[in-house]
Amino acid sequence: MKISHIEHLGIAVKSIEEALPYYEKVLGLTCYNIETVEDQKVKTAFLKCGDTKIELLEPTSPDSTSAGFIEKRGMGIHHLAFAIEDGVANALAEAEGAGIRLIDKAPRKGAENLQIAFLHPKSTMGVLTELCEK
Amino acid sequence: MKISHIEHLGIAVKSIEEALPYYEKVLGLTCYNIETVEDQKVKTAFLKCGDTKIELLEPTSPDSTSAGFIEKRGMGIHHLAFAIEDGVANALAEAEGAGIRLIDKAPRKGAENLQIAFLHPKSTMGVLTELCEK
Repeated sequence: MKISHIEHLGIAVKSIEEALPYYEKVLGLTCYNIETVEDQKVKTAFLKCGDTKIELLEPTSPDSTSAGFIEKRGMGIHHLAFAIEDGVANALAEAEGAGIRLIDKAPRKGAENLQIAFLHPKSTMGVLTELCEK
Repeated sequence: MKISHIEHLGIAVKSIEEALPYYEKVLGLTCYNIETVEDQKVKTAFLKCGDTKIELLEPTSPDSTSAGFIEKRGMGIHHLAFAIEDGVANALAEAEGAGIRLIDKAPRKGAENLQIAFLHPKSTMGVLTELCEK
């Protein structure tokens, strides 16, 4: 696969409202979008940092994966997303061929209208890894 | 503080030798440097990804902080490092003034000859945060 850059970094927080003052006033980043991804049961806030976005993830339901993550490990970095230049479907096929376990067998629609798919952290040394394309 | 981009992402692994085939052959990134930071008791491998580096961290001693991290949480993303444009000392003073708990009261020398300092994850919603300048 061809990765151009880190598309975003997903960070699980209990409350976007409580997290934003740190990201905006202390770090000096700017939140440019807040949206809810219904099928992930998560509210997301985006801040730009160089060519990478920071995506704050607030669970909207206690049975969401982000709520489970916070309950188990506390707030913190949840996943790492790469921007794929030569297609997520192609990247998934390559990864599967190399023995990587896939969470998504095919690309699906994610936040910001990207095509996305996740690799399983059991195959990626503990890093929940997302592949993205516009 | 003025952040220009994410300088690097630190990922704790048990073995750089075992982790590199995933990063190089599956993800297609290139490791351009491996070095040991004696006072952190860690071996580091650097891969470039856009304007951000991925820094794989392998503990060289069971009493290092990275070994403790792996024992407690398993392998995974360990810290997030921002490139600071207006000086780490200045950024530390600003952060402390905003009530953020500092791990380092003053910049010190890190890997790749950067001036670095860490903010405490208790003050940053669970994200061990490093500030870097060249």
